[in-house]
Amino acid sequence: MAEVKNKQVLLRDYVCGYPKESDMYVTTTSTLNLKLPQGSIGVLVKNLYLSCDPYMRNRMKKLLDPTYYAESFKPNSPISGFGVAEVLESGDLKFKEGDLVWGITGWEQYSVINATKSVFKIHDTDVPLSYYAGILGMPGMTAYAGFYELCSPKKGEYVFVSAASGAVGQLVGQFAKLLGCYVVGSAGTKEKVDLLKNKFGYDEAFNYKEEADLDAALKRYFPEGIDIYFENVGGKMLDAVLLNMRLNARIAVCGMISQYNLEYPEGVHNLMNLITKQARLQGFVVTNYYHLYPKFLEFILPSIKQGKIVYVEDVVQGLENAPAALVGLFLGRNVGKQIVAISHE
Amino acid sequence: MAEVKNKQVLLRDYVCGYPKESDMYVTTTSTLNLKLPQGSIGVLVKNLYLSCDPYMRNRMKKLLDPTYYAESFKPNSPISGFGVAEVLESGDLKFKEGDLVWGITGWEQYSVINATKSVFKIHDTDVPLSYYAGILGMPGMTAYAGFYELCSPKKGEYVFVSAASGAVGQLVGQFAKLLGCYVVGSAGTKEKVDLLKNKFGYDEAFNYKEEADLDAALKRYFPEGIDIYFENVGGKMLDAVLLNMRLNARIAVCGMISQYNLEYPEGVHNLMNLITKQARLQGFVVTNYYHLYPKFLEFILPSIKQGKIVYVEDVVQGLENAPAALVGLFLGRNVGKQIVAISHE
Ligand SMILES: NC(=O)c1ccc[n+]([C@@H]2O[C@H](COP(=O)([O-])OP(=O)(O)OC[C@H]3O[C@@H](n4cnc5c(N)ncnc54)[C@H](OP(=O)(O)O)[C@@H]3O)[C@@H](O)[C@H]2O)c1
Ligand SMILES: NC(=O)c1ccc[n+]([C@@H]2O[C@H](COP(=O)([O-])OP(=O)(O)OC[C@H]3O[C@@H](n4cnc5c(N)ncnc54)[C@H](OP(=O)(O)O)[C@@H]3O)[C@@H](O)[C@H]2O)c1
Repeated sequence: MAEVKNKQVLLRDYVCGYPKESDMYVTTTSTLNLKLPQGSIGVLVKNLYLSCDPYMRNRMKKLLDPTYYAESFKPNSPISGFGVAEVLESGDLKFKEGDLVWGITGWEQYSVINATKSVFKIHDTDVPLSYYAGILGMPGMTAYAGFYELCSPKKGEYVFVSAASGAVGQLVGQFAKLLGCYVVGSAGTKEKVDLLKNKFGYDEAFNYKEEADLDAALKRYFPEGIDIYFENVGGKMLDAVLLNMRLNARIAVCGMISQYNLEYPEGVHNLMNLITKQARLQGFVVTNYYHLYPKFLEFILPSIKQGKIVYVEDVVQGLENAPAALVGLFLGRNVGKQIVAISHE
Repeated sequence: MAEVKNKQVLLRDYVCGYPKESDMYVTTTSTLNLKLPQGSIGVLVKNLYLSCDPYMRNRMKKLLDPTYYAESFKPNSPISGFGVAEVLESGDLKFKEGDLVWGITGWEQYSVINATKSVFKIHDTDVPLSYYAGILGMPGMTAYAGFYELCSPKKGEYVFVSAASGAVGQLVGQFAKLLGCYVVGSAGTKEKVDLLKNKFGYDEAFNYKEEADLDAALKRYFPEGIDIYFENVGGKMLDAVLLNMRLNARIAVCGMISQYNLEYPEGVHNLMNLITKQARLQGFVVTNYYHLYPKFLEFILPSIKQGKIVYVEDVVQGLENAPAALVGLFLGRNVGKQIVAISHE
């Protein structure tokens, strides 16, 4: 019944505007009994990889709506999020010591996870374990469900993806290429644009920060208009897309990261085009599509192993670097899926 | 081969901002040969009723996009729109002298219609003929397709309709009530609010012009939120609805009349709620659903005759009064479907 130090990342206080590293802090003084309490139906895990995800910004504010899909982090408590972990002890029959799992865990070395229904056992370890915090976890499922379930994609269609080199975007572009679509992505640096074209197989890519007129940029890459827009950023980009839709266009609203740190979201002006273009704008939350996870694995695991799908991760080491990695998402610092590796702590 | 006077309503020039009566003018000097040219495949008609429709505002401006679903009216030419007419002579085998028809015709006493594919023969005359410019014509089909095809309505759902007493709105509310939904409508006068509650069977109705806070108004009528919004007005009302959606809400974007006369459309700020509510916003154009017209008639004609569906029209007499009737739509002057009767000219 060893008592161990348990390094943790805690929220300092609710956040307004852009999150800063100093909105979180790391303690090394907390300790944990490496044993589940008698009768526990949870699992005790050692965390290996943590996932930095944009939706976590939302949990950093005081959420008042009880029907909302996520809960606020608590000031001076460890934050939580998706991660990959090893089971040390289990009170849940689905898991046993030594199992590898992914799901919602704490931003700390060791966690007791009581809500085991958001924990999934990892069966295939022929791929990097960290993938279960990215391509084989929540972001992968997001790209899969958002693209295949919401966009009704067809071969030859014109597809646009924003935040295109990120955890979700890099996959959407590759899925669309596999299907024979024409695919263009936008991202915020030259390095990312190069990745899009040279690594992920996008037909074209551009740096949205260098385009004074997003409408003109889209007209350049889509002279015939856009059939499918995978929406990750919102705001001005959405407004420009609305001006460039083809008849029966579909927009999957996955995220609107450009709006997450504003006190009042920007206005979108061109919605009338939805009528004349008979177009659809549809939001979704990935957890609603988890029933497709087995089907997704059947498709994605062989695709990874055969090299048909690649995945770029941006891995930082250690819980000390986790706050910077998380806030970096909102500054576009991550190149690919942002992961924090803590297995060696 | 009688030459007759042919009174006409012409567009004076392209319109900016709110349309005015003086943007159109009426001539009585034009004449027409009451005979089709040799070899014509069109129909010569005497117009009986004309329909005033909000989309006509769009045709009053110089439209530059050739892929757009409608064409500009031409300055100093008669405007055109939906109407009910009697066939005087036909070069199209589908029609013969004496037939009654509805479809796109000119704003004038007599028209030669060459595009007969947008003209439909009227078979049932046990109902007011003017209905074929409203409930049995384009606006009726709009309510039907928009509600049944786009909203996926289910018994017991919470439905909100804006411009709820108008040509389209009054029907959407009644369709939703027939299905067992809870239905609330908004309109711009007390008289219309009374109509909604007492004539069309809406559960509740409110005057949006008297609500300083549309979000609060919607929360009052929909404490549990909105499942279906039939969008006729856009702008601030849409923004308020986005704050009050239930999970899996559906918004059929039929029109956004509050935006038609603005040089630059207002911004809509609350689209992020589409994600968390996993909601859908979908635009449509009624002409795409005309294949459902026979099925629609099968449903609507008995409903009218059995008094299950009522229809309120606002009929003005004479082409002289047509410009005022048309611009009145944008001032909310019409109470129910706005019709111009010209049968006695
Ligand atoms: N609906 C769901 O269930 C669900 C699930 C997962 C993720 N999401 C959403 O999907 C989107 C992508 O998430 P991800 O995990 O793949 O993140 P990511 O793309 O790996 O990282 C975020 C990226 O967003 C871009 N960005 C940041 N601020 C921006 C701004 N103001 N304007 C434009 N781009 C900006 C940055 O790239 P640049 O260098 O290109 O600017 C940054 O690298 C997010 O909106 C997220 O909330 C939704
Ligand atoms: N997508 C399609 O195929 C299709 C087909 C037909 C119609 N539509 C659209 O459906 C909507 C309703 O058409 P309708 O024929 O039934 O017209 P209507 O409701 O009979 O007449 C227009 C009504 O709109 C309201 N209105 C005017 N300006 C407004 C503003 N600034 N804010 C809020 N309400 C305003 C007025 O009523 P209040 O007194 O309540 O303000 C007015 O009576 C329009 O947006 C139209 O463009 C679309």
